[in-house]
Amino acid sequence: MLGAETENLYRRYIGHLNERRLELGEFVHETLTYNGAPMTRLEYQSLIAGDIAATPDLVFNIDLLVTNGEWIACRLVFECTPKAEFLGLRPNGKRVSFAEHVFYRLRDGKICEVRSLIDRHSLAAQLAA
Amino acid sequence: MLGAETENLYRRYIGHLNERRLELGEFVHETLTYNGAPMTRLEYQSLIAGDIAATPDLVFNIDLLVTNGEWIACRLVFECTPKAEFLGLRPNGKRVSFAEHVFYRLRDGKICEVRSLIDRHSLAAQLAA
Repeated sequence: MLGAETENLYRRYIGHLNERRLELGEFVHETLTYNGAPMTRLEYQSLIAGDIAATPDLVFNIDLLVTNGEWIACRLVFECTPKAEFLGLRPNGKRVSFAEHVFYRLRDGKICEVRSLIDRHSLAAQLAA
Repeated sequence: MLGAETENLYRRYIGHLNERRLELGEFVHETLTYNGAPMTRLEYQSLIAGDIAATPDLVFNIDLLVTNGEWIACRLVFECTPKAEFLGLRPNGKRVSFAEHVFYRLRDGKICEVRSLIDRHSLAAQLAA
């Protein structure tokens, strides 16, 4: 795929997440690796569902997006009010904002590999305050 | 610049850092923003010099690189043995490995904006062990 096609695909994927459409077969292979560990698509969907359960108002905002045919790199900025333990951190009732920098590898137009870093340091500081 | 040119530029930039050539006028504007904060190139160079002083064997390895004309997204993997406080964490004598996911914006072929996330969580776990 070309860069523009890849970008469109990714924007649709994020749209699905924000609409809570978590059946991701259109975007993600049946198996993938997530930060180096093998994972099924169902497990990947459960991971996202778990985050949304802990923070029901979670919104995925694309802040920066760089693509070529094979890779997508995105800076996502989240805003949410955690209601339950989230990324191992306890909620304090406050609205928080934090970033994720994530790379996705595509094979045949679907995600097969994810490398994600979340700004836990900033999130922990906001949830400690 | 095209993607391939941008990639070459970035590989030369990382080569400079690994050769400890920290005069970065060829690659970085006189002023930039670093994670949203204004910074001079001299301050940026000092930041990198400080990291290298704390971890003299620090090597910058490009693990993933996605570019277009304007943006560079890179997953860097570092290996080093911190000798002094590094990213606010005390050394324990052990060799560590950790990642940075970083976006650079180019203007007229030089970096004018940096958005960086470092895997402090993994680093802290390794330095706590």
